[in-house]
Amino acid sequence: MAVGAGRRRPSPGLRELLRVPGGERVDLTAYDTRATPGGPGAPKDKAAALEAVARSAQRLAGLQERLYAASTTGDRRRVLLVLQGMDTSGKGGTIKHVIGLFNPSGCRIRAFKAPTPEERKHDFLWRVRRALPEPGEIGIFDRSHYEDVLIARVHQLAAHRELGHRYELINRFEQELADDGVTLVKVFLHLGYEEQRDRLLARLDHPDKHWKFSAADIDERALWPDYRAAYEVALRRCSTDTAPWYLVPADRKWYRNWAIGTLLLEHLEALDPAYPAGGFDLEKSRKRLLEGA
Amino acid sequence: MAVGAGRRRPSPGLRELLRVPGGERVDLTAYDTRATPGGPGAPKDKAAALEAVARSAQRLAGLQERLYAASTTGDRRRVLLVLQGMDTSGKGGTIKHVIGLFNPSGCRIRAFKAPTPEERKHDFLWRVRRALPEPGEIGIFDRSHYEDVLIARVHQLAAHRELGHRYELINRFEQELADDGVTLVKVFLHLGYEEQRDRLLARLDHPDKHWKFSAADIDERALWPDYRAAYEVALRRCSTDTAPWYLVPADRKWYRNWAIGTLLLEHLEALDPAYPAGGFDLEKSRKRLLEGA
Repeated sequence: MAVGAGRRRPSPGLRELLRVPGGERVDLTAYDTRATPGGPGAPKDKAAALEAVARSAQRLAGLQERLYAASTTGDRRRVLLVLQGMDTSGKGGTIKHVIGLFNPSGCRIRAFKAPTPEERKHDFLWRVRRALPEPGEIGIFDRSHYEDVLIARVHQLAAHRELGHRYELINRFEQELADDGVTLVKVFLHLGYEEQRDRLLARLDHPDKHWKFSAADIDERALWPDYRAAYEVALRRCSTDTAPWYLVPADRKWYRNWAIGTLLLEHLEALDPAYPAGGFDLEKSRKRLLEGA
Repeated sequence: MAVGAGRRRPSPGLRELLRVPGGERVDLTAYDTRATPGGPGAPKDKAAALEAVARSAQRLAGLQERLYAASTTGDRRRVLLVLQGMDTSGKGGTIKHVIGLFNPSGCRIRAFKAPTPEERKHDFLWRVRRALPEPGEIGIFDRSHYEDVLIARVHQLAAHRELGHRYELINRFEQELADDGVTLVKVFLHLGYEEQRDRLLARLDHPDKHWKFSAADIDERALWPDYRAAYEVALRRCSTDTAPWYLVPADRKWYRNWAIGTLLLEHLEALDPAYPAGGFDLEKSRKRLLEGA
């Protein structure tokens, strides 16, 4: 790994490598869910990834602190990690293992489930707007407004015309967020069909994991091709220059964690937030403290 | 350290040791802020505490997961850690180092600052009610409704009569929370006056910490005896059987982290949440998955 002038980068441009080209037809079957693009080791391996993630913890937390500090003097920048993927693709695991590296004070995590009666009274972006990170924070969406073009499309929860309009509404919404200082990091956890079966079976095998399982998960699994098609449309239409989608192969948990940690690191380093100068007289304050105050 | 029948406890009853007796006069000058009551080592030392905290991480996260899992089938129990203490007493550090041991998904953290114009329109408990943990979560208040009998008392931000009434309102509120499954863990971080000076000076010495400092911090420091008196009244009047206050000497950060981690562990172990049984037919589900679904 190259060592730069004072600042190491874990990988040159994972953002470029994982970015889904917008506007073009997306064929998810062409992406290997077990792949490890840009992976840290040579040969790319688990141990190197685990080590790299652990090593990045301090830098991630340091950048997060600078981002937060900058917000105290008016910098409105913040990061919003959007996690989408099929059941068991590792949204929760990512939060535990990657977001767990940050200072929890500055993280605003929201899991989106089926809309509540109150949420249904509003447009689909209403509940999302209420869960956005404040300036200086790292926001994390476990599922998001994209459910409204995924499950909503698969189960036809809205009129065809309305659904078709939502992609454009999402793009406008995300542009608006970007204009207000939000760096969107949209991650699609690309899981294999076989791997999902293994993970669901593992849930059945462990009584401690039964609470995570529902028979409805198998019903949803039967709709796999429909979900894939819905994802393909969402990725094509909403991977924009402003807010690109990143496709992270998700069969290997160690790769998933490494890749998302690295994506966050690259984005935070690009933001390069700075500690603000203090708004006080340093010598006067020191003197007051030393002279007994 | 004694090893029990399968489950180790880090300390027998730190809850008892640190609990502030309610109803009795409290004299904070009688509590040594550098003390390490119940500390883990013999001799009580930093290395043992750091090791104990690291070792407890898995148990804390495991209990948290069980608490969350139980909530998915209707268990309304949750934990609310309330952190109070003078500036620099370590509320933020506790969240970073102790709450950082939990899965961030299940933590709901709220820092209370000066009330916003909207918050001022409501009674002082309004904003607190909106920030409560949901069932299964660990809530963390960085400052809390107690500010309304602390800074509000020191700066006379409310009428004398109104202030006097708030202790009773707080006790009723906390009883109501307890009745709804909330285990309150109220921690007063007891910092020394000298130690605060050293910590404020350290902020001045490090440009990276200037953003945490304000000249107003020194003005507040000048009101130290008033704050101490306000804390003494709050501890006396609001350390109840339902929701006792714990006094944690806070000059030593390693002790503070160990003590709060241990208090949380003891409370979670007492709750002893259980993974719920799955609401599905295990064999049928397994068969469906194996037969190609």
